[in-house]
Amino acid sequence: MNEVVKQLMEHRSIRKFEDKSLDEDTVKILVEAAQQASTSSFVQAYSIIGVTDPEIKQALRAISTQDYVEHNGHLFVFIADFKRHHIIAERAEVSIDDYFGATESFIVGTVDASLAAQNMAVAAESMGLGICYIGSLRNNMAEVIELLGLPDYTYPLFGMVVGYPAQTGSRKARLPFEHVYHENRYETGAEYLQQIAAYDEEIADYYRERTDGRRSDKWSSQVTDMLSRKTRTDVDGIVKTQGFLQQ
Amino acid sequence: MNEVVKQLMEHRSIRKFEDKSLDEDTVKILVEAAQQASTSSFVQAYSIIGVTDPEIKQALRAISTQDYVEHNGHLFVFIADFKRHHIIAERAEVSIDDYFGATESFIVGTVDASLAAQNMAVAAESMGLGICYIGSLRNNMAEVIELLGLPDYTYPLFGMVVGYPAQTGSRKARLPFEHVYHENRYETGAEYLQQIAAYDEEIADYYRERTDGRRSDKWSSQVTDMLSRKTRTDVDGIVKTQGFLQQ
Repeated sequence: MNEVVKQLMEHRSIRKFEDKSLDEDTVKILVEAAQQASTSSFVQAYSIIGVTDPEIKQALRAISTQDYVEHNGHLFVFIADFKRHHIIAERAEVSIDDYFGATESFIVGTVDASLAAQNMAVAAESMGLGICYIGSLRNNMAEVIELLGLPDYTYPLFGMVVGYPAQTGSRKARLPFEHVYHENRYETGAEYLQQIAAYDEEIADYYRERTDGRRSDKWSSQVTDMLSRKTRTDVDGIVKTQGFLQQ
Repeated sequence: MNEVVKQLMEHRSIRKFEDKSLDEDTVKILVEAAQQASTSSFVQAYSIIGVTDPEIKQALRAISTQDYVEHNGHLFVFIADFKRHHIIAERAEVSIDDYFGATESFIVGTVDASLAAQNMAVAAESMGLGICYIGSLRNNMAEVIELLGLPDYTYPLFGMVVGYPAQTGSRKARLPFEHVYHENRYETGAEYLQQIAAYDEEIADYYRERTDGRRSDKWSSQVTDMLSRKTRTDVDGIVKTQGFLQQ
């Protein structure tokens, strides 16, 4: 296993940072590393907002409810973005509404922004920095749009905090390889269920060890707890207002 | 710039591979590196299908129209996947339909699969392998679902071919840093348009150099050409049939 693969295997989210901002050069390297990720048909359908204004950070923290959204080395927000494509199309007097309003372009923007973000995560960790994704910005997407002045044809996907780690974080085991990886055809037989059961025990052990036995959640119960809650139901209306998902 | 960042900066898609399959250990390392990527609230809402059956590869190549979908070291297909969560919820007699049918969970599955895929891309390149994303599997998503036996609550996002490079590939410049990265607020002023114009010239030069002047497309005209075509309009209906986007 080479050094890069080792680094990927050692990934853990960091939620507590030293009180030290990233310098401009570091921010630039991170963004440029993000930009080198693959992009669907070269459309580059994303933008990145770096949030340094303390008031905006505070407001985003309130949306996320996570302290580290305010206290970090740098806060990036990843935006699925077809604004520039609309400007170009308008100038050329060409309509791209059929394409853009389709579910396909919603996928393209979401994927492009995600690939860029993961490149940034890898770059940051290679520089000794820690990262955490902030999906909880979608708790109130409308306010994020307002705070960051996002135009139509864009939507805020998630944030990422980057900074000098003030904790080590812990690595949580993933679902078994055999459960996630299928050869040729997706199989949901007896083994598939056994794999979940085995994984449940592994995750319960993880919590037991870390909490001196006070906590022993299974992954399955976390899944049902989380997914049975009706959350972020406004996301649909907001991405539609921004121009996406018109089909 | 450290070695990892250098590697990210040097990324290029590879579309021609030696006739040599990845061995099982390599496939396993790639999938496990993918699995270590961040995942929204730890839901791990994706699966990966490795396609080795020559008939299925041929059929997927026909969908994609790209020769390298058939000829590569290994073909992975990334699936946004809430099947396991539905099985778990059913067993626990809990309904997750409100969550699952919402646009939010469509985003979560799409993002989870994308972050995993980009980790795989980085791992592969660190091992001297080349990669190319295959978005064109979405040319006929229904057939991909059929070929890979994908159950409801899943959808095929994209493929990735990995293999021993038989070409060097070329690195295409991305949009200017200043165009993609905004501080605190998204700005679309005069500079925003100038940045596109400058980038258009850069891309035109890139093609001129590579084709002895026969080609000199601007990025803007590629964008309008591509996005004015009405393509993959069936994606919406298919993801809905699979159970997504019920709002």
